[in-house]
Amino acid sequence: MAPEDLVRDITKLMREGDREELISLLRNSAREGRLSDALATLSTREIHELADTLGDDAFGDLLGELDPPDAAQLLTRLAVRDAADVLEAMDPDDAADVVGAFDEADANRFLVEMEPVEAAELRQLLSYAPDTAGGRMTPAFIAISADLRADQAVVALRQLSREAETIYYVYVTDEEDHLIGVLSLRGLVLSPPQTPVREAMVTDLVTVTVNTDQEEAAQILTAYNLLALPVVDEQGRLQGIITSDDVSDIIEQETTEDIERLGGSAPLEESYLRARPVHLVRKRLGWLLVLFLGQAYTGTVLAFYESTLEAVTALVFFMPLLIGTGGNAGSQVVTTIVRAMGVGDVVFRDIFKILWKEMQTGVMLGLAMAAAVFVRALMLGVGVDVGVVVAITILTVVIWAVTVGAILPLILRQLRVDPAVVSAPFIATLVDGTGLLIYFSVAGFILGL
Amino acid sequence: MAPEDLVRDITKLMREGDREELISLLRNSAREGRLSDALATLSTREIHELADTLGDDAFGDLLGELDPPDAAQLLTRLAVRDAADVLEAMDPDDAADVVGAFDEADANRFLVEMEPVEAAELRQLLSYAPDTAGGRMTPAFIAISADLRADQAVVALRQLSREAETIYYVYVTDEEDHLIGVLSLRGLVLSPPQTPVREAMVTDLVTVTVNTDQEEAAQILTAYNLLALPVVDEQGRLQGIITSDDVSDIIEQETTEDIERLGGSAPLEESYLRARPVHLVRKRLGWLLVLFLGQAYTGTVLAFYESTLEAVTALVFFMPLLIGTGGNAGSQVVTTIVRAMGVGDVVFRDIFKILWKEMQTGVMLGLAMAAAVFVRALMLGVGVDVGVVVAITILTVVIWAVTVGAILPLILRQLRVDPAVVSAPFIATLVDGTGLLIYFSVAGFILGL
Repeated sequence: MAPEDLVRDITKLMREGDREELISLLRNSAREGRLSDALATLSTREIHELADTLGDDAFGDLLGELDPPDAAQLLTRLAVRDAADVLEAMDPDDAADVVGAFDEADANRFLVEMEPVEAAELRQLLSYAPDTAGGRMTPAFIAISADLRADQAVVALRQLSREAETIYYVYVTDEEDHLIGVLSLRGLVLSPPQTPVREAMVTDLVTVTVNTDQEEAAQILTAYNLLALPVVDEQGRLQGIITSDDVSDIIEQETTEDIERLGGSAPLEESYLRARPVHLVRKRLGWLLVLFLGQAYTGTVLAFYESTLEAVTALVFFMPLLIGTGGNAGSQVVTTIVRAMGVGDVVFRDIFKILWKEMQTGVMLGLAMAAAVFVRALMLGVGVDVGVVVAITILTVVIWAVTVGAILPLILRQLRVDPAVVSAPFIATLVDGTGLLIYFSVAGFILGL
Repeated sequence: MAPEDLVRDITKLMREGDREELISLLRNSAREGRLSDALATLSTREIHELADTLGDDAFGDLLGELDPPDAAQLLTRLAVRDAADVLEAMDPDDAADVVGAFDEADANRFLVEMEPVEAAELRQLLSYAPDTAGGRMTPAFIAISADLRADQAVVALRQLSREAETIYYVYVTDEEDHLIGVLSLRGLVLSPPQTPVREAMVTDLVTVTVNTDQEEAAQILTAYNLLALPVVDEQGRLQGIITSDDVSDIIEQETTEDIERLGGSAPLEESYLRARPVHLVRKRLGWLLVLFLGQAYTGTVLAFYESTLEAVTALVFFMPLLIGTGGNAGSQVVTTIVRAMGVGDVVFRDIFKILWKEMQTGVMLGLAMAAAVFVRALMLGVGVDVGVVVAITILTVVIWAVTVGAILPLILRQLRVDPAVVSAPFIATLVDGTGLLIYFSVAGFILGL
């Protein structure tokens, strides 16, 4: 469905006042990622009408389904007073994401209009770095006292459920909010009604602190198959929960950063379509220049071998092919190893196993490529001796590229450098220079130059 | 903790007969990915002792926590009779994964020893392709009749909970097993006890079929924030469910495949450490050869310009630098765009927006690199005219690389080719040849060759 069709359907449902159908259409198109474009074409009057038709709760839910910058954009089209009401109606973690998408001055315009308690809650959430458990958590959890019975807990749960992000876990805290146990809804439903919470609760707790990296929190939640992970402060007081639906967002974001690094760019930190050209330049230019400097010495190598080049111009014909193939072989192995490290399949102590595996692989790949380049040399009619030079060179370069591509990320991780800096362009650049040295050494030896 | 320490702790707990502590140690080390190595060092007698101490249920749970090939390996160390009992005790989807890790003949040895009903269930699951919803689902769901009341549903749930993978959703089916509704445990707990299931259930169902691609199923489950997604056959009969803990496995597997493709290799389809060198060769050689053939024409280009090269050898000095920088710029944009397409941020109709954005970015990056390469040319003392040639070339090559890198993945997707075939090595190879053509055209024009 094109954006204009969606807009037509939305305005039609608004005119007809079919609120249920409208909410369902908006929610589904938001989940399919098609809503933001459509809403951007509505007039301010239509946006106000939409907000009135939906009411604060449903409009807030809708904002929670959008990307925070899109939601923030939409919010600025309401009166500040109305926007503050919508923010109050939203889940606090979603509201914090939206407010966090504004710069500080704009964020404050909304916060000062909100109820002081709710504004304080948002300010607290905004005080944590966005990539920490504190920055991801929601304070909308259910906590009860250990002195209740199972049936009383169910009653408490019914009362508190409306405000809670999940009711699948009920947390048990003491008077000072220290987390002392957890009850799953499953456990609660399956327990006899008279069981004291203190006996039914699980005390072998899996928690993270507000400063835990969001990726680590996501990995823990996944490894333990939890629906929510409690986040505590340094004193063990329950501050919030991260729910399982946050995990896919976190993993998507972290994986995107890894992939962008592997491609030889700094992470964009915002969605591609929203990134302005000058932002893209800022993220890419640094590595382009570093790689340029790394590659600049190829000029020095070639200048050094100027007389060789003048003697056998045919050597030049194979330069891009030889160093290109080396770069490709290196890129294959670097991407595979960095990913295997990222998902925990490979660690530093596997280094000798990997080295042995890649050297065998490199020999097989190198021999195949040597045969290919020898045939190509004969086709170009450059003579058998140059053919032998390029065949030996490509064999050596492939083994070298595969070996260095495999162990460099492991060594960097051991040195506490992010292994994804060994990007495909990085290894290609490294192999370009060293490959030329190999090439001219082999040529010098065999051709007697 | 090193594997030998873990083995020591495991054997100590076995000797002491501390079953609870042993289970907890095994489960936690399995989740941290450290268990398989440790278990591989145990003797067959010790493995039998471990299986006896744990019992079929706990040993089966343990296998469910391991990677299927590791679990399969462990299973072969038990007597076939005992292994069959363990498989019967496992969650059917986990058991199917383990049996699926054997070749057909070996799998059959276990299946014929199992109870016919349970073996038939596994054979059914194994009949679906592993990357489909059918291949991922578990048949261990809870289904009830619409004629029950909420309180009766809770009783049914208590009775059925032991065998079920999740009790957070109760599915409502008719006499022919057609899925007609779903009740969340949340909805059930919050409903008055006398409510008929028919009234309390949700009928606006989100489902997939057994043949739906696993990645699509994972995206739907995530987009709708579900804890489980029902899988139906062509007739709408409920066959199984995919639970939210499957999603991270699916996404991890699919993302790994995308990353390996982006690095210029075919997906490994098994864990890196388990892959033998000959398997790695098989996955890499195809693309290396395709790229080699694509790059081989650079030799033709260079042979064509042989007289130019002999006239101005200095042009050779900059060849790796110019085409390398073009390849790096192309790699940056390809990885970013392919990832943005993968997460649904970018679609084909954005092509002109992207083209405009990347051309602006390319001009800025190209100007910066032109300044850098001009300085480098002066440093190498090759003369201002060659400096001007390389500066103009790098500007053109960067704009070209960035533009083609941005739109090629979009066009391929539109042609229903996987955009990840436009890998970093692919774009680097493409830019190598075309970059040389640009280089010699500019040189010919400016130097009057």
